[in-house]
Amino acid sequence: MNVYTIGVGLIGGSFALDIQEHYSDAQIFGIDANESHLQEAKELGVIHHTASYEDLPNADVVIAAIPVDAAMEVIPKVLDLCNDNTLVFDVGSTKSKIAQVVKNHPKRRNFLATHPIAGTEFSGPKAALKGLYRNKTNIICEVEKTAFKLQERALEIFQKMGMRIRYMDVVSHDKHIAYVSHLSHISSFMLGKTVIEKEKNERDIFDMAGSGFESTVRLAKSSPAMWTPIFEQNKENVIETLEEYISNLETFKRLMQDGKFNEVYEEMHNTNHIKNILNGIQ
Amino acid sequence: MNVYTIGVGLIGGSFALDIQEHYSDAQIFGIDANESHLQEAKELGVIHHTASYEDLPNADVVIAAIPVDAAMEVIPKVLDLCNDNTLVFDVGSTKSKIAQVVKNHPKRRNFLATHPIAGTEFSGPKAALKGLYRNKTNIICEVEKTAFKLQERALEIFQKMGMRIRYMDVVSHDKHIAYVSHLSHISSFMLGKTVIEKEKNERDIFDMAGSGFESTVRLAKSSPAMWTPIFEQNKENVIETLEEYISNLETFKRLMQDGKFNEVYEEMHNTNHIKNILNGIQ
Repeated sequence: MNVYTIGVGLIGGSFALDIQEHYSDAQIFGIDANESHLQEAKELGVIHHTASYEDLPNADVVIAAIPVDAAMEVIPKVLDLCNDNTLVFDVGSTKSKIAQVVKNHPKRRNFLATHPIAGTEFSGPKAALKGLYRNKTNIICEVEKTAFKLQERALEIFQKMGMRIRYMDVVSHDKHIAYVSHLSHISSFMLGKTVIEKEKNERDIFDMAGSGFESTVRLAKSSPAMWTPIFEQNKENVIETLEEYISNLETFKRLMQDGKFNEVYEEMHNTNHIKNILNGIQ
Repeated sequence: MNVYTIGVGLIGGSFALDIQEHYSDAQIFGIDANESHLQEAKELGVIHHTASYEDLPNADVVIAAIPVDAAMEVIPKVLDLCNDNTLVFDVGSTKSKIAQVVKNHPKRRNFLATHPIAGTEFSGPKAALKGLYRNKTNIICEVEKTAFKLQERALEIFQKMGMRIRYMDVVSHDKHIAYVSHLSHISSFMLGKTVIEKEKNERDIFDMAGSGFESTVRLAKSSPAMWTPIFEQNKENVIETLEEYISNLETFKRLMQDGKFNEVYEEMHNTNHIKNILNGIQ
């Protein structure tokens, strides 16, 4: 099986490692705009060979693991180049825009829109992890638009990697993921910004930070190159979540200003059952 | 050494476990308003004996590990009861109010105001952890107001437990801790609230949540009984941090609304160096 991963960073590289593990015959080819990442991925054993777009007619599987803006241009080009039996899937955090772009492509049935809910705050080939996707959810959108035998090939790969599959329409995906993923990143980046701004004037503030602070700002280490186009493509949904979040923060602030600490207690108490909800998350 | 811990939960219980480890002669006595916690702490071996306030004249060390509102009443009472050679220290997340309360107490020199920057989102005796304080910072306020030989006793305990000591005035403590701790808790609680509110209408949203979401809402599992009085005692500082945080979120939202995604990129890029800052946090 010839597997081409376009993008050899955290996401594509982790797919490459798992496919090597589960398919002893798989040859993994890497394509990446960043030549040094490509060399690094080869040295780390993430990929077997470096490759270029001209090689794609030989592909059985193509994984597009690149920022969602780049995917808009790369995926139609990949579909143009691949053969009738190639499975092409993306892994982006937004799904409506890519669905529009491929909608009328003559090879639409070669494409599967996926979003594995997995990652870390790190990026690049060094960040690739074997087993990253084990027990994680992979959301598949518009599955009916993909050729059945290519759906089967994709599902076999995802199941060998230990992923749970959920099917969803692109509109619901983009709306829900804004809440449980995109908003978290903004809350974390802005928390980091607020504290860094303060620290400019007040030295050593970070000596006082503990593991709770570290946990809430962890996502502020994430790659702006990856996240900016996600926010751009999911602009309306993300703005909606931000407005609700800001409104909740304003309410909390007002309760404090008014000295209504019984209600401050209730605000926190009512959110405490997130404990049980989170138990379902790996 | 007779050590009395008032509050046998996460914080007091973890002190009890470490002191047992480092002082083989230590007898640990527990006092707690919650009788079932007290029994549980004894069964778990967190404390050796249950006790009551009348026993305090026998104490060499008293740890007040209770919510900061309860501490305002309990600590003066403990100082009334203890002997001239007893070290009494608190571990609360606010320091100005307790400093005021003990300011003119005849046994002020028996008291040491401390804030170990350590904890988890869990509470109760079961949450007590051996080694919780290892390599963590313990902030000591108004050290000059504590009798020197009692400072020495406290430092020996903290150093055996592996803590780093920082000295700070109470005003700076409360101002800085609002940024690196109190604000994180509110951002996390309100993020949890925003997503839970959405989930009421949109089923299964949490199936889509990944480890990033879990990290940012982890602190929303924290105890409202502990946190409400902290926000009340540190009201002005916390409101200031909330206003700066909301303002940064508003700016981010406006940049998105105006389609200024180069600036959205810059916002995130400028916060990315938190990576290096966080490397200093355990």
